[in-house]
Amino acid sequence: MAPTLGELAQRLKPGLPELELVGDPDVRIHGVCTLSPGEPGCLAFLANPKYRPQLAATRAAAVVLGRKDAAGFSGNALVARDPYLAFARLAGAFDRSAEFVPGVHPAAIVAPNVVVPPGCHVGPHAVIEPGASIGSGVYVGAGAVISSGARIGDGSRIEPRAVIGSRGFGLARGPSGWEEVPQLGSVVIGDDVEVGANTTIDRGAIGDTVIGDGVKLDNQVQIAHNVRIGAHTAIAACVGIAGSAQIGARCLIGGGAGVAGHIEIGDDVAILGWTMVTRSLPGPGQYGSGIPARPLRQYRRMVAHLRRLDALDDRLAELEKRAGIASRPRAHGEDEGGEPDL
Amino acid sequence: MAPTLGELAQRLKPGLPELELVGDPDVRIHGVCTLSPGEPGCLAFLANPKYRPQLAATRAAAVVLGRKDAAGFSGNALVARDPYLAFARLAGAFDRSAEFVPGVHPAAIVAPNVVVPPGCHVGPHAVIEPGASIGSGVYVGAGAVISSGARIGDGSRIEPRAVIGSRGFGLARGPSGWEEVPQLGSVVIGDDVEVGANTTIDRGAIGDTVIGDGVKLDNQVQIAHNVRIGAHTAIAACVGIAGSAQIGARCLIGGGAGVAGHIEIGDDVAILGWTMVTRSLPGPGQYGSGIPARPLRQYRRMVAHLRRLDALDDRLAELEKRAGIASRPRAHGEDEGGEPDL
Amino acid sequence: MAPTLGELAQRLKPGLPELELVGDPDVRIHGVCTLSPGEPGCLAFLANPKYRPQLAATRAAAVVLGRKDAAGFSGNALVARDPYLAFARLAGAFDRSAEFVPGVHPAAIVAPNVVVPPGCHVGPHAVIEPGASIGSGVYVGAGAVISSGARIGDGSRIEPRAVIGSRGFGLARGPSGWEEVPQLGSVVIGDDVEVGANTTIDRGAIGDTVIGDGVKLDNQVQIAHNVRIGAHTAIAACVGIAGSAQIGARCLIGGGAGVAGHIEIGDDVAILGWTMVTRSLPGPGQYGSGIPARPLRQYRRMVAHLRRLDALDDRLAELEKRAGIASRPRAHGEDEGGEPDL
Repeated sequence: MAPTLGELAQRLKPGLPELELVGDPDVRIHGVCTLSPGEPGCLAFLANPKYRPQLAATRAAAVVLGRKDAAGFSGNALVARDPYLAFARLAGAFDRSAEFVPGVHPAAIVAPNVVVPPGCHVGPHAVIEPGASIGSGVYVGAGAVISSGARIGDGSRIEPRAVIGSRGFGLARGPSGWEEVPQLGSVVIGDDVEVGANTTIDRGAIGDTVIGDGVKLDNQVQIAHNVRIGAHTAIAACVGIAGSAQIGARCLIGGGAGVAGHIEIGDDVAILGWTMVTRSLPGPGQYGSGIPARPLRQYRRMVAHLRRLDALDDRLAELEKRAGIASRPRAHGEDEGGEPDL
Repeated sequence: MAPTLGELAQRLKPGLPELELVGDPDVRIHGVCTLSPGEPGCLAFLANPKYRPQLAATRAAAVVLGRKDAAGFSGNALVARDPYLAFARLAGAFDRSAEFVPGVHPAAIVAPNVVVPPGCHVGPHAVIEPGASIGSGVYVGAGAVISSGARIGDGSRIEPRAVIGSRGFGLARGPSGWEEVPQLGSVVIGDDVEVGANTTIDRGAIGDTVIGDGVKLDNQVQIAHNVRIGAHTAIAACVGIAGSAQIGARCLIGGGAGVAGHIEIGDDVAILGWTMVTRSLPGPGQYGSGIPARPLRQYRRMVAHLRRLDALDDRLAELEKRAGIASRPRAHGEDEGGEPDL
Repeated sequence: MAPTLGELAQRLKPGLPELELVGDPDVRIHGVCTLSPGEPGCLAFLANPKYRPQLAATRAAAVVLGRKDAAGFSGNALVARDPYLAFARLAGAFDRSAEFVPGVHPAAIVAPNVVVPPGCHVGPHAVIEPGASIGSGVYVGAGAVISSGARIGDGSRIEPRAVIGSRGFGLARGPSGWEEVPQLGSVVIGDDVEVGANTTIDRGAIGDTVIGDGVKLDNQVQIAHNVRIGAHTAIAACVGIAGSAQIGARCLIGGGAGVAGHIEIGDDVAILGWTMVTRSLPGPGQYGSGIPARPLRQYRRMVAHLRRLDALDDRLAELEKRAGIASRPRAHGEDEGGEPDL
């Protein structure tokens, strides 16, 4: 039988003592729904202020929200300091996902010397190579590859088609073309890490590539050889991190961003989506570099202006000269810009 | 026996009544070829004006082209209003591709409760999880994953290694690190959709991620949870769409572009390649933001100038002050730029 | 028994005659290590000047380095003109990687008419379709797909989950939505090519997609239909190359860069990471366009200034007018910027 709102609130109390129920504790909650339009019998949440206007008209049986939004709301509510976190925990009560069935699928290939603890899930067509080490409670999705020597910590999730321990892109110029640099290291993944679908993590060239505890990597992320990522850092989709970069703890890296090789990013750094990081960045701090979209005509004028910044600087200098203003050092452009990171 | 040019023209007439044959209708067409150098016995096309100079010297037996280009061409021709569309249909006559063999490959894993209609192709190592629904005439390539509850409409193609229904990147900050937000929704894919190789589509967090009829997604595209894409929108390779973004119908999104979460893009919007979209964009319209490549020295000067735009603005203000021009409001930079989309 | 430093130097002499041993030739070398902290009994290298300060304190038994760095170093050293190349060759002596075991894994699917030479490795869940051609000494990683008609040259490595011969994104606008343009060509991959994990290479629409000898492609690269890449070009991770682009020989393309369709890049071109290439680029040369990250406040001001470059130009023109300086042609912005490459 579906739990009541009051029962759900009680379950959350130990971890969220400030949680407050406003309204009818006896309404039954059958599942979760979005705020708009909302579903009778279901629980919605409001965390992003953008969706505030949807609150009044929601058909949800109850809403998890913050104190400020609760003030003007007449429906049933769970008032939380962090409504998204409260909702995340509540939603777990309705997660009927059957994906995590413990066991090794018969169509997975697990090397004979690898011990997969009994509580793990290894999906169809997953490959676990000799010498890999799998912690307890690990989820290895369909078709994921865990290469030789890779270590996966307890409770970590490797989503479908991710490749842990791909060959690093190590090349040296020889007299008749590229020569491959042996990639002798491995990958060490901490506890409670999530690696998204089709994400690739290269093994180290000499030492290991290291992903700290609690790190969350979205889909289609590329982590090159010998990268080190500090604990609880989250990296959104389509990010690329070049070789030997070091990322601190508790960083946030937005989607599509890129980090050059051999640089260091401090702890608690937030990098906006589509930012290009080519120098070390101290933490804590927030950084960006992406140019937002504009209508085509304005965009093209911007590009044209960018090509003429040199001329613009010259024109300004000429005016300053005529006005008797001392000339300033010119922008020289040495040592600026990204490197051809390979 | 190979069809004649006249026979090919006849076949196309019902759909393209304006098609006109100029030259010899009895020449036999054995296949298709590029305009340059062209192959005797084969059919080429000219649609991109960039390749116009190659027309005179082509060795192709006949060329599909527009009226304007036909004027100065002495070879055999099929004159069409849209030469690329006409060619696309003609080329189908020579498509001997054996890839779409109906049936489920013995090395595919299809959950027992899933009905795969007899005309579908399910390739080796594809995985179709319990509760997934597959329309008629669907192609599921080698190693593609269709997760629990995902629905694939009639005639859609899921290319190799695509993942439909990966876990969304839903994270809430808890007292001791990230907590995973249950991802309870699914993915609904319409009819005649194409999903490229290694593309990933996350299932919804609460409701579904929805891909409209006739949508075409290239390779290595990432679609996050609860994204909605309108009918007949085409998205080129390496694009990332963040969570809950809504894309209209008939949009074109160029390669490498990124769309932030929780924004709306109208119908008939064209977004240039490598554009960063961080705000809602009304449609119809064209938008861009990428900076085109420049030679290294000029590029570095541009970067140096960009770092000094504040100073440049100050210098201009000083000159204006001396000239007795009233000062203008300063660029403040609040509320500008992309957000750290996670 | 582990080789001595002198023995290792002797092995390299034929290919690197200028190599010079400084210090104790009898020290035994058991493996390789990083310069910092370094491991007793192991060999490190110093190639990137950034790591020069680590040299004095290294615990490595010997270091491969350049003449300049050798001058002030008192430890055992192998002095090389190109220390990275020398190290690459030395490290091969310690590569105990068991990944390249010749043979076809029983869980691979190889079409009956495909001959896999005896020295090749075909990993689990790899798929080699009918009519594909595999050279000698080829490595096909776990789950890689080699489509019908694709040709892989001798000594090439296809890393896990790469897709060679995916369907090109060929679309023509029809009266009721997109019509798929048959993709009738294939992929030709030369000798000694490396294709990274989760990289996708589309087959040609009419002719073939061609990857030259010695080309190295990192992970998550997307190569569209009919692209041609010249010999010994190296492309870092997350790069997208749009259809029919031609890339010269010995080019370097940094991570995250994008190349538009139907353009030509000359030989010996280096493209910095995150560069957007929308026009043909002559070679040799270096090009860039990415904007480096800045602290949030400065970044937002930069974005605000970029929106006002038109106004800034106007203000400058007004000052010039008052100063009696003849007006200059305005930036028009026509024909600037990227195209919506699909």
